[in-house]
Amino acid sequence: MRAVDVIAAKRDRREIPDEELHAFVLAYAREEVADYQMSAFLMAGCLSGFSHAEAAALTAAMVASGDRLDLSRLSGPTVDKHSTGGVGDGTTLVVAPLAAELGMQVVKLSGRGLGHTGGTLDKLDAIPGMRTELSSDELLDQVERIGLAVCAQTADLVPADKAMYALRDVTATVDDVALIASSVMSKKLAGGAQAILLDVKTGSGAFMKEVERARELAEVCVALGEDAGRATGALITDMSQPLADAVGNATEVREAIEVLRGERSGRFADVCVALAGHMAALAGLAEDARAGRERAAAALASGAALERFRRFVEAQGGDPRIVDDVERLPRAPITHEVRAGRAGWLAAVDAEAIGRAAAGVGAGRQRKDDEIDLAVGIDVLTEIGAQADADTVVARVLANDQGAAEAAGAALLDALTWSEERVEAPPLIHAVVGPTG
Amino acid sequence: MRAVDVIAAKRDRREIPDEELHAFVLAYAREEVADYQMSAFLMAGCLSGFSHAEAAALTAAMVASGDRLDLSRLSGPTVDKHSTGGVGDGTTLVVAPLAAELGMQVVKLSGRGLGHTGGTLDKLDAIPGMRTELSSDELLDQVERIGLAVCAQTADLVPADKAMYALRDVTATVDDVALIASSVMSKKLAGGAQAILLDVKTGSGAFMKEVERARELAEVCVALGEDAGRATGALITDMSQPLADAVGNATEVREAIEVLRGERSGRFADVCVALAGHMAALAGLAEDARAGRERAAAALASGAALERFRRFVEAQGGDPRIVDDVERLPRAPITHEVRAGRAGWLAAVDAEAIGRAAAGVGAGRQRKDDEIDLAVGIDVLTEIGAQADADTVVARVLANDQGAAEAAGAALLDALTWSEERVEAPPLIHAVVGPTG
Repeated sequence: MRAVDVIAAKRDRREIPDEELHAFVLAYAREEVADYQMSAFLMAGCLSGFSHAEAAALTAAMVASGDRLDLSRLSGPTVDKHSTGGVGDGTTLVVAPLAAELGMQVVKLSGRGLGHTGGTLDKLDAIPGMRTELSSDELLDQVERIGLAVCAQTADLVPADKAMYALRDVTATVDDVALIASSVMSKKLAGGAQAILLDVKTGSGAFMKEVERARELAEVCVALGEDAGRATGALITDMSQPLADAVGNATEVREAIEVLRGERSGRFADVCVALAGHMAALAGLAEDARAGRERAAAALASGAALERFRRFVEAQGGDPRIVDDVERLPRAPITHEVRAGRAGWLAAVDAEAIGRAAAGVGAGRQRKDDEIDLAVGIDVLTEIGAQADADTVVARVLANDQGAAEAAGAALLDALTWSEERVEAPPLIHAVVGPTG
Repeated sequence: MRAVDVIAAKRDRREIPDEELHAFVLAYAREEVADYQMSAFLMAGCLSGFSHAEAAALTAAMVASGDRLDLSRLSGPTVDKHSTGGVGDGTTLVVAPLAAELGMQVVKLSGRGLGHTGGTLDKLDAIPGMRTELSSDELLDQVERIGLAVCAQTADLVPADKAMYALRDVTATVDDVALIASSVMSKKLAGGAQAILLDVKTGSGAFMKEVERARELAEVCVALGEDAGRATGALITDMSQPLADAVGNATEVREAIEVLRGERSGRFADVCVALAGHMAALAGLAEDARAGRERAAAALASGAALERFRRFVEAQGGDPRIVDDVERLPRAPITHEVRAGRAGWLAAVDAEAIGRAAAGVGAGRQRKDDEIDLAVGIDVLTEIGAQADADTVVARVLANDQGAAEAAGAALLDALTWSEERVEAPPLIHAVVGPTG
């Protein structure tokens, strides 16, 4: 394998043989292929496209570049889920205990966030005492005992993806479906679960703004998972507005607990139930997704999922009292109410702008080493299709000072588009891709 | 200017404003834009194309990235010529003294070779005592005195091109006409001459195998030169076989001296006369290229160009006795005659393969720091259209050992294609681009 030949083949739209592509990616992981060669290859791929075979070879090579999590000693069935990311998207906090309660074993490797708000690990950090660095043995023991664990991905998992992801970010090569899919799926395949459910977001707060692009990504991901012998499916879910009311870290944990208590219905709860239901069907624990959803809804209503969450918090060293008293979670001193200032129906939301407003009060990072404030955030109290008058409180900003709170409130209002006429709520689940569809 | 935005614009086929592109290239020269960003940009350009305005901005930025040679104290007219490179292509050795004899001032900055055979500097190294490292003052004084100097390009001239050229070589981004043209023209513009003649080679021994691609490159180069206010022209000359008989270093110097003596006619001499004639026309020293060629032919016949060459060798510390006695030039101990082995007319030549055969006996470099053997090479004694029988000597290999000589001889025979029928010689000058056409 000569790196320059692999690059030239992609430039000239020639199909690259599996073993050549495999060798190229592994040589890159060993730093024998330079960053400037990989970036030229990635750009050639963005413009020439990748075939399905090439995407599969890329994915397999990224998996082979590092350690794989060996789940073979677990009794199973093991299931993983992955969200492509959005605003107010803390589904893992609800779905993981729910799935465990339905009989699945959930080994969830997560990351910290970059952008609007924190990642799952940041949200867990809001729980006093919670540990997210687990050894492989701790992780497997805990999953075998209580059905779930959520911890940090080690540096040795898919190092080639890590390096390529960082490179893509600074070379305008992020925006290619095959590259996105191989990045997502290499991490899921290395994570070792037998079944994988993807939550592909679409809309103003998602990377894939259009449903068709989201569907394309879902289809490539599902094909890559099936190729690798994993039961794989995808839901395409709505991100035309924040999914949960809460946008932040501690505040998202509070909302998740309220959903687990069965106290809070709505879009966020509905998506969590759908995800858990499809996971159950993929894992062979429910006849179909509909049956899985029914079981998931029952596990929420009975309080069983909440108990599972309590055991999860306890197992990872967190303070289990937060489950009964969410006020033990950090909350910023200032609560600034934001009023609509006009009458009408909410017609559209720039969800990404709301994410940026939350980051503006300190809930998200701009750079990898930025400090995040777990206690701040925005609770959005309206949704597309809802009616308001000028005095309706449409959001509460949780902040440390009044100036920042008011700026975030103004930004939030700018992100809302109102209509004089009644507006339909958007569908919550746009499509299902894979065997549970 | 954000590097990632410039890259994204090229990826998306959007025109990049001059000042953005300028800032991008200068930031790269300052190492503020990384190699992996430049390589992604170059690949995007190879696939999306560059507009003329973009090629001009790239060229101007590369010139601005370093020093420029200031020729303003010369009495002029100053003229430069550049060959895109081929096999047996030692025209500078003849053209520079010829042009000087016609009244031009030739400041020729050259490089060492990579590939088949040496560059002009390597060929000059074959002349005992010859210095090719001149200070700027030495250079200008010599040119004012005798009309020509040939020396090494300093590291401070077009550093951005140097870095981009090295990067293109290892990222499969060599093959774009705008990038090739901006690389060529940035060096010529920084070299400061008022008139520039390009010798764009086409055929089996050239980078541009097809005449149409060569013409495209010539047109872009000429437009970039004219844009920058220089009288610029191009000849598209044949490289479907080695231009000179001699392929090597000392052996090419020997042939050049024989041409300068007026003892040797043929394709090499004809191209040298044509180049000098067009240079004279571009510099305003001849009414047209035809008149220029006549003057050049006369300067060869009279021995005046040879005297100019002698003064050039002397001025740069070389042994002028080589002019009268070419046997003072190094010559390898073994001369291996290669016979046709069959009867017929020579129909085609793989000139690049002959270059590789010469490199095989030590006349060229594979890597920058390889030692070159100035005494070895191949003299090709046939040409397309010539008739041979089995015993005709078609080449002489000059080498240090018999095994290497025989291997090169076999490779040379493999590079020749014979016909049972009479074959026409190819045209020597395929086209003229620019004001002298």
